[in-house]
Amino acid sequence: MTDGFTLANLPYGSFRAGPGQPPKLCVRLGDDAVTLGALSERLPGIAPALLDAPNLDRLLRVDSVVWSELRAALQDALSGGAPREACFPVSQGVACLPFTIRDYVDFYSSLEHATNLGRMFRPDSDPLLPNWRHLPVGYHGRSSTVVVSGTPVRRPTGQRPGSEGPTCGPSRRLDIELELGFVTGSSPNPLGEPIPVDQADRRIFGFVLVNDWSARDIQAWEYQPLGPFLGKSFATSISPWVVPLAALEPGRVAGPRQDPEPLEYLRAPEPRAFDVELEIALTVNGQSEAHPIAHTNARELYWSASQQLAHASSNGAIVSPGDLYASGTISGSQPGTQGSLIELTWNGERPLELGGVARTFLEDGDTVTISGWSPGTAAGDRVSLGIVSGQIVG
Amino acid sequence: MTDGFTLANLPYGSFRAGPGQPPKLCVRLGDDAVTLGALSERLPGIAPALLDAPNLDRLLRVDSVVWSELRAALQDALSGGAPREACFPVSQGVACLPFTIRDYVDFYSSLEHATNLGRMFRPDSDPLLPNWRHLPVGYHGRSSTVVVSGTPVRRPTGQRPGSEGPTCGPSRRLDIELELGFVTGSSPNPLGEPIPVDQADRRIFGFVLVNDWSARDIQAWEYQPLGPFLGKSFATSISPWVVPLAALEPGRVAGPRQDPEPLEYLRAPEPRAFDVELEIALTVNGQSEAHPIAHTNARELYWSASQQLAHASSNGAIVSPGDLYASGTISGSQPGTQGSLIELTWNGERPLELGGVARTFLEDGDTVTISGWSPGTAAGDRVSLGIVSGQIVG
Repeated sequence: MTDGFTLANLPYGSFRAGPGQPPKLCVRLGDDAVTLGALSERLPGIAPALLDAPNLDRLLRVDSVVWSELRAALQDALSGGAPREACFPVSQGVACLPFTIRDYVDFYSSLEHATNLGRMFRPDSDPLLPNWRHLPVGYHGRSSTVVVSGTPVRRPTGQRPGSEGPTCGPSRRLDIELELGFVTGSSPNPLGEPIPVDQADRRIFGFVLVNDWSARDIQAWEYQPLGPFLGKSFATSISPWVVPLAALEPGRVAGPRQDPEPLEYLRAPEPRAFDVELEIALTVNGQSEAHPIAHTNARELYWSASQQLAHASSNGAIVSPGDLYASGTISGSQPGTQGSLIELTWNGERPLELGGVARTFLEDGDTVTISGWSPGTAAGDRVSLGIVSGQIVG
Repeated sequence: MTDGFTLANLPYGSFRAGPGQPPKLCVRLGDDAVTLGALSERLPGIAPALLDAPNLDRLLRVDSVVWSELRAALQDALSGGAPREACFPVSQGVACLPFTIRDYVDFYSSLEHATNLGRMFRPDSDPLLPNWRHLPVGYHGRSSTVVVSGTPVRRPTGQRPGSEGPTCGPSRRLDIELELGFVTGSSPNPLGEPIPVDQADRRIFGFVLVNDWSARDIQAWEYQPLGPFLGKSFATSISPWVVPLAALEPGRVAGPRQDPEPLEYLRAPEPRAFDVELEIALTVNGQSEAHPIAHTNARELYWSASQQLAHASSNGAIVSPGDLYASGTISGSQPGTQGSLIELTWNGERPLELGGVARTFLEDGDTVTISGWSPGTAAGDRVSLGIVSGQIVG
């Protein structure tokens, strides 16, 4: 996981240099976290308060022009390597949330995922609901339970459906959702003023990996008619390094064809998608080996980040610095390209065999690790999104 | 609206003394806002930083014991009236959001409201879905578009269903939702640790009136399968004065009987409900008279605030200082006791006649004002929740 963190990437995170140390805004270069506050003298055009900060919150509030200036200044200042006194090994650091999450929106933008769930739960009708191809379906999730990679995930208790009425107990169908998320910044649009789709990218600071843990039994019982609530709100894990939009630009690709053509406010300039390879590995309780269980790519997402953001603000809603927007589960059409266990095991009917152990849903002690990287345009340009990992505790 | 603001109430708000002045944490006494920062010397046991603050954010972070101490100290310090230098007339002040909204959850806790919508939209089946009597159905709303009373509400644009596919344009079915909300505070429960229902009240700081504006056409098209999104997220208005839970205690009453008996984690100590009278008045564009269109009471809510909070944290989700939890639309069983236009006009079929003008849904220029008060236990004890008001702009 140490390659893909060159000057072409330079993702931002909030790390403690060690236990008990205060969190500091850093960029990652190779295996090191580089504390931005220690680089002030090398970055004369940048306001010191943006650098000597605990996390990204301040930087998210300034204009995207400053983001570009800082990135260029950092690439210049670090071109000969980072000064030793500004660095500590990432492996010794303690990751914190890279920014304070304001609103959290989760979309449902993978055609294959929506189709798979439709086939499973409504086998006798069109797997896609009538609105799906017209708008990026989404809903608000819980901001306060977004946690950074490495945070243990407690198996949630809740109401589970039963033949003699619901019972309360630990979820028996705890699942993964592999997603790509982005964080917004810059001055908020005034209330009542949508963000045009061709300007949406200016509001996107960067991307993180997301595991939107889901308790399928709790969700199935509660979600009618107002959508998911406690089946999702117990925890959402994100990767500690926010990869700037600029670092993913070399991996920009055309998105899938949209039919019917979206309404005008959703017609995004192409190329609108990003080539991001994604992998899920599962280490089952008591084993040491991580088994890859899925490999997919974000480029096939039907709705792009720019379309998601234009849609989310189309009613005039404010998009704030620190909002997190997640793609929804990313699934491909081939076997082994699905981003959730409910799809990979077809609603639990086809268990995975992992080192002699069968798995349908997650057991206590299991660890899920999602990794992601953009291949870039040429050999050696790989841009890593790092990992988001979490272990289930009972 | 000036009665009901005695020492028995003492609600908290954030007001500017005039345009351009900084926001200050205040309590309301009669027609005056009393700046807490100016009372420090009269409140010797209270940390000055809690008082000399722009809003409630700091106070929400301290333990409920401090809330009680401050309330007692204020009632003592203001028993002979507020010092003149600490006061300004509320009518000259500018209301700000009383606290920074962290997570916003909207419930669906009125049996009559859920039944009415079920009858309208699923006429051939049981109006209540199977889960409704087992748990307080709820979902997350958008925090960043919660606005304070008086903020104009822009009619949202969005996708509206049509016989030849959706079109994008201004909502044609803009509605009201009359709700009662509460704000939480004190130290957050650790991630993974639910709040027991008999301890939920300790986390409730106080109550506000809520108008959860709803674009029924946008909502109807978008909401399957993940719930309301843009049909709600354009604006949610709250009243500027947060009435402490303690001020509503004299109006505590038994809640409606629950059948079936809820699961153990939802068995709230009685009396669990609050006697809060609520009224909606509508001033149609071009008129000056406010027409009362609905009168109802929060005491009939099937699920109480304590049950809502126990449920929202039952999966271990963190309840943070500054979370807003709204009841869902409050409707009674009698004509004229419904908290939304879609119910009052029965899906637009029975327009209201208001001073010679017909209304089904809201028109540009219309102003909606919700008021609320607790009758208290004896004459003269009325505790006002003030008003939440907003005008629709095109």
